[in-house]
Amino acid sequence: KLPHNNGMNGNGVHHVSVRAPVSVNPAKLKSHRQRWNVRPSEMSKKTLNPIRAIVDGMKLTPNPEKPMIALSIGDPTVFGNLPTDDTVLQAMKEAIDSHKYNGYAPSVGYQKSREAVSNFYSCPEAPLEGKDVILTSGCSQAIELAISVLCNPGDNILVPCPGFSLYKTLAVSMGIQVKHYNLLPEKSWEIDLQHLESLIDDKTACLIVNNPSNPCGSVFTKDHQHKILAVASRNCIPILADEIYGDMVFPGCDFQPLAPLSSDVPILSCGGLAKRWLVPGWRMGWILIHDRNDIFGTGIREGLVKLSQRILGPCTVVQGALESILNDTPPEFYQGTISFLKSNSEICFSELSTVPGLNPVMPTGAMYIMVGIEMEHFPDFQNDVEFTERLVTEQSVFCLPATAFEYPNFFRIVVTVPEEMMIEACIRIREFCARHYRPRSQDSHELDQ
Amino acid sequence: KLPHNNGMNGNGVHHVSVRAPVSVNPAKLKSHRQRWNVRPSEMSKKTLNPIRAIVDGMKLTPNPEKPMIALSIGDPTVFGNLPTDDTVLQAMKEAIDSHKYNGYAPSVGYQKSREAVSNFYSCPEAPLEGKDVILTSGCSQAIELAISVLCNPGDNILVPCPGFSLYKTLAVSMGIQVKHYNLLPEKSWEIDLQHLESLIDDKTACLIVNNPSNPCGSVFTKDHQHKILAVASRNCIPILADEIYGDMVFPGCDFQPLAPLSSDVPILSCGGLAKRWLVPGWRMGWILIHDRNDIFGTGIREGLVKLSQRILGPCTVVQGALESILNDTPPEFYQGTISFLKSNSEICFSELSTVPGLNPVMPTGAMYIMVGIEMEHFPDFQNDVEFTERLVTEQSVFCLPATAFEYPNFFRIVVTVPEEMMIEACIRIREFCARHYRPRSQDSHELDQ
Repeated sequence: KLPHNNGMNGNGVHHVSVRAPVSVNPAKLKSHRQRWNVRPSEMSKKTLNPIRAIVDGMKLTPNPEKPMIALSIGDPTVFGNLPTDDTVLQAMKEAIDSHKYNGYAPSVGYQKSREAVSNFYSCPEAPLEGKDVILTSGCSQAIELAISVLCNPGDNILVPCPGFSLYKTLAVSMGIQVKHYNLLPEKSWEIDLQHLESLIDDKTACLIVNNPSNPCGSVFTKDHQHKILAVASRNCIPILADEIYGDMVFPGCDFQPLAPLSSDVPILSCGGLAKRWLVPGWRMGWILIHDRNDIFGTGIREGLVKLSQRILGPCTVVQGALESILNDTPPEFYQGTISFLKSNSEICFSELSTVPGLNPVMPTGAMYIMVGIEMEHFPDFQNDVEFTERLVTEQSVFCLPATAFEYPNFFRIVVTVPEEMMIEACIRIREFCARHYRPRSQDSHELDQ
Repeated sequence: KLPHNNGMNGNGVHHVSVRAPVSVNPAKLKSHRQRWNVRPSEMSKKTLNPIRAIVDGMKLTPNPEKPMIALSIGDPTVFGNLPTDDTVLQAMKEAIDSHKYNGYAPSVGYQKSREAVSNFYSCPEAPLEGKDVILTSGCSQAIELAISVLCNPGDNILVPCPGFSLYKTLAVSMGIQVKHYNLLPEKSWEIDLQHLESLIDDKTACLIVNNPSNPCGSVFTKDHQHKILAVASRNCIPILADEIYGDMVFPGCDFQPLAPLSSDVPILSCGGLAKRWLVPGWRMGWILIHDRNDIFGTGIREGLVKLSQRILGPCTVVQGALESILNDTPPEFYQGTISFLKSNSEICFSELSTVPGLNPVMPTGAMYIMVGIEMEHFPDFQNDVEFTERLVTEQSVFCLPATAFEYPNFFRIVVTVPEEMMIEACIRIREFCARHYRPRSQDSHELDQ
């Protein structure tokens, strides 16, 4: 667009002196760009964040008479009611005072820190050693490295629907096709296994299983996970298990990591400190390599090491604190978090399940509730995006429309907000629904049929 | 290699119950992989670290009678003689105690932290605001994002030779071609501008300028930088300025950032805390977007933001400490580091410049010295790799062969080691060279001509 400026940049003397040798070689001039034309790369253009795309397109002007309540942000720290444990902060300060964690670590992490993670997650059915752990800059980089090492452009990956949008963002930017398999809300968001298997073809490089689930808050039973593994096993598809919400399950429910349930399916399990230790900003993630049948072999391991050298791993101070964070955080801390999440989930579920037109699905873990909207009862709105947009305008409550998770007609509520905000938000949602609910539209709909 | 295990994974009951619906659809069975075949991706195979490739191929068995002296590692913290400043550590502990920096930051960094960087680097000729700063997970991610946003597969980039190997590692993994332009040791490693310009073609997407230089320890004059900019300007090539060693120049020398010297050439300047603040493990880097002529426009800026959302940015604790680190670190700290580096460089240079067969090039900044080897005088060795390998075997001194920087017949010395180690290393190098130097080989060589 801009014309070439003839090389005038305020220092004509140097300009002339350098141009001289070039002018003797007119052939080369042909290759010169005659004007500036710097455009963002295809990869950057293909890197799409659906949440941003949808949220940025919404008119989010809260009702000035009501303070805003954001139930949209998957960050448990924003309201200050869920601080991390003092042990965690103390471990960081000790790492700083030790002066031992300022230099470069190996790109896959300090051996001692890798061993701290392997010790923490190793179990007799799926033993882990330090060499089986890659430390990463947050669980996002763990997922990026896992997809990068398993998939080539033109391959496809299977991702849950509804599901965390990053899988698609990363895959599409790398030229990898995404196939969505359905989760079934009526079966506590279990995978539609028949649908899943129908999507597999020769180009399927990886199955992503997210358990406990964002955005569903669901936790798979051991039985269901055996069935998932059976699909992977007979189709010879490796699994990327996104278990960042691992162990964040409500009392009475049991989290079962995927890897110990299979000795043949190779699994890259991605996790990190973000959620369970309530420090998502620290960017400490990891990949656990489960490969008891030696199917990944050295190729995938070496590939992960190579890819880790592109930008190196997580902050060394956090790496230095990791052993103490994992070993010394008291059980009461974890228990406190999950009983709060359960209590808030129950408040939200019981409030919203009596709101005509809404169908919340009670979660058993993580920090989310998905709420179905009977759109036919809300003729004022075309879809979940309009529904949640107006919920902001009228009630100053913001929930993420589940279109952001490729799952229209639902919205997601984050249950980490303080209890009184959760209660107030539910009251406002009830008021909003009462105002817009049209029972007759269902009647007429039924009559039509 | 491994035969398909027929789906037997120890839970036959689930297996049968799931297989049933599939068996009614024989067409689908064709698409099943019949055996495991998980291979690392092409990208992971293309991610090559030449330093690792060369070092891993060397027999590095030190002489058991001499303690090892590693002059190979570009990490100023390894010997403990160059600690970071207490202000820096204190800033981190305050960030932790504030409890404010545990949650997610925006993917490009906290606005306050971005503004701390822009205030620190802004100058009247090249003003910066917070929006012009992208915080990254180390300078490596800054370079990765900059290349990613400017280049498409099939494009080429111009990189210095000798030069830091990461440029090539990243570019090749992304399908971007690398063209090496020569630096001239006899002109204090200035760029061979004619050679540089001869490499430019229609596919040239970016010129990487590294100043001060790794591995050369050179610092460009303002005059030379004007000439570099003139080449970029008349060919309309944007610049990635790797200025991670910025301001690490010896007393009497002056570091001139590139951006203030041009109002038309768009520049992404990459930097970070790693070197000047002596905390490379903390992974705090940044991109400064200089675009006074609006050539990048919104496209490149938006592209950088999108790419930053793939794995998010640096650790929030370090982000929280950043303002204080930049503003409160006393000048004496910086001065102490560079006068140590200068002193060690002078010791090393004056020792080695009197060793027959070696030609060290005196640096003026960063933390490296390049030493030329007159290979014709060392017939015992085929190349710099063998030379440095035997230097380990005999003298327990390890220097990186400059083949790792695509520049044979040189080796690189890191000058951050304690003074007494530097002196001892030079004594051993002298002894090694004296033993292997063959003056007559040069005589006969001259007679041949």
